[in-house]
Amino acid sequence: MSAIEGFWGVVPAGGAGTRLWPLSRAGRPKFLLDLTSSGRSLLQATVDRLAPLAGDHVVVVTGRAHADAVRAQLPALDAGRVLAEPAPRDSMAAIGLAAAVVERRDPEAVIGSFAADHVIPDQGAFETVVREAVEVARAGHLVTVGIEPTHAATGFGYVRAGDRLAGAATALHVRQFVEKPDAERAEQYLASGEYRWNAGMFVVRAATLLDLLARWHPDLAAGVRAIAADPDRLDEVWPGLEKIAIDHAVAEPAADAGHVVVVPAPFTWDDVGDFASLATLLPEGADGLTVLGEAADVTVVDAGGVVVPAGGRRVAVVGLDDVVVVDTPDALLVTTRARAQDVKKVVDALKAEGRTDLT
Amino acid sequence: MSAIEGFWGVVPAGGAGTRLWPLSRAGRPKFLLDLTSSGRSLLQATVDRLAPLAGDHVVVVTGRAHADAVRAQLPALDAGRVLAEPAPRDSMAAIGLAAAVVERRDPEAVIGSFAADHVIPDQGAFETVVREAVEVARAGHLVTVGIEPTHAATGFGYVRAGDRLAGAATALHVRQFVEKPDAERAEQYLASGEYRWNAGMFVVRAATLLDLLARWHPDLAAGVRAIAADPDRLDEVWPGLEKIAIDHAVAEPAADAGHVVVVPAPFTWDDVGDFASLATLLPEGADGLTVLGEAADVTVVDAGGVVVPAGGRRVAVVGLDDVVVVDTPDALLVTTRARAQDVKKVVDALKAEGRTDLT
Repeated sequence: MSAIEGFWGVVPAGGAGTRLWPLSRAGRPKFLLDLTSSGRSLLQATVDRLAPLAGDHVVVVTGRAHADAVRAQLPALDAGRVLAEPAPRDSMAAIGLAAAVVERRDPEAVIGSFAADHVIPDQGAFETVVREAVEVARAGHLVTVGIEPTHAATGFGYVRAGDRLAGAATALHVRQFVEKPDAERAEQYLASGEYRWNAGMFVVRAATLLDLLARWHPDLAAGVRAIAADPDRLDEVWPGLEKIAIDHAVAEPAADAGHVVVVPAPFTWDDVGDFASLATLLPEGADGLTVLGEAADVTVVDAGGVVVPAGGRRVAVVGLDDVVVVDTPDALLVTTRARAQDVKKVVDALKAEGRTDLT
Repeated sequence: MSAIEGFWGVVPAGGAGTRLWPLSRAGRPKFLLDLTSSGRSLLQATVDRLAPLAGDHVVVVTGRAHADAVRAQLPALDAGRVLAEPAPRDSMAAIGLAAAVVERRDPEAVIGSFAADHVIPDQGAFETVVREAVEVARAGHLVTVGIEPTHAATGFGYVRAGDRLAGAATALHVRQFVEKPDAERAEQYLASGEYRWNAGMFVVRAATLLDLLARWHPDLAAGVRAIAADPDRLDEVWPGLEKIAIDHAVAEPAADAGHVVVVPAPFTWDDVGDFASLATLLPEGADGLTVLGEAADVTVVDAGGVVVPAGGRRVAVVGLDDVVVVDTPDALLVTTRARAQDVKKVVDALKAEGRTDLT
């Protein structure tokens, strides 16, 4: 199948991936890393995933500090398709700017926004879902992709679906976006069958998105449209933009107003939030240990878990069941999968020490 | 108090300390390392400990590969006092050669043999014990120093004592040397009060040791005496020497023949056999973690155990209770105190891979 006429991929490439320290750093964030041993960074894999749908109609929005690295990783992308934010202004400003740029190129264009640091192994299922989402979006809906939950996750927000959209293959009206639940509520969500994980993927006409934004945050909509009209005004306008996530700025009020539709997504999706999550994406070795990198650099005696031998040295693990060992040239992390979320505390401690060289 | 007239310290400096990998290596064995953060290697600390008793009457026996490193660590010692073995021939040949060298210098000399890689924090108690041992040895006994057991250890051999030696302050006749016991037997040994740990420390007239050796292993006794008489014959004679431990060659048969005496030693002694043992020698940090090296190089979040940051990098440990992390420039070990003995298996695996550079 060929690319979808009038469809643009938008890839917000932000976030340091603090819980993946010391692999990810402020200067070399998660999306620039090949965390799946595929030979492609998460960013590259995201753009690869969009190519059959959007061709070269892809816009990446990233921090100014990473724009050169992003362009270097995506040599086939026109340099102008990498939008560099002067400072972080959260997801609404980033996606809004991309929407405004696309809107000027094609007022009827549909954009699909997909974070640069997520993993979706099933390309075929992804394409099927996005093609339906684009069709639905053309009718003026804000479409979100809702991942079919495989367990009662407490780490994601959820989308609560209602009735089938008239005439749609699978799309459902969205009744509500809900925040990350506690464990009990997550079990209820799973049992009800009404809820999908909110993976932060939105498909919508660029003009629709900006018009919805103009309804609730008019200055922000005007700001990104002003920059798109005259890119030289970026540094002047950007600092005054409201810092807000797209979920709060548009998706939630639009859902309450009945404008949001969800396409259920029957594919595996992972936001690679920490090393426990990373471990599930990699094949487990014969010895019970998952290695990201050269398995020959690891010596295992009765051990299980995840080892990242990225420091150019031999790593030996003896008698630990669920360990996480991440070795890099200047920093080493030892923890467990169960405590993978607490890696953030190490980064906080290093920042408190002023060790920006290590974070 | 001044040095003991006619007393010579003998320091066998052998053994790689495989269970302390990757800190200790074949080329940089345990005895050359400062494992107690004292500023002195275990070898230097052993020679320091003997200085008040033996002055500069100290002979070190080591492998040819380590002779230069030993001389460099002991610049005050005459180079000729470092005897270099052409190849490992176990402890009897090593101590026997030192005895033969000392015997030629002073036929009445008493030697005291103390391994180069043991730790004895209480210098005063050590000196008191050795002074008594030397007195007893002058009468022709083979004297061993028996450590008062503090728990039912299964990792050491034991000395079973009998009656008090007539006229001695604390020395007792030895009934028997016994091998490392199982846990049940170790409890019995501890409860009986008759047993001390065999720390491999022997004090004996050089001539007595060699005469006893001549009784059970005449070729070995003749061999080391021949080398002492003509050091140029070392390479010719050494390879033919019997490879046997001093315990089996002399101590056990001498005990059976009623020639062995033990001086009970009321001091703490540690052979630093593995990282669990090492941990007990170091002060525990305020955060529950014991660090050998720069504590500032370690970031701890809810963790306990031992960390050796010797790789010049930041080491972060999160959420592990009893972990051992040893970081060096070319190899990293992660294990637990409970599994500290199994570090040997890593070294075995690396040797099987032919990675002599790492072992």
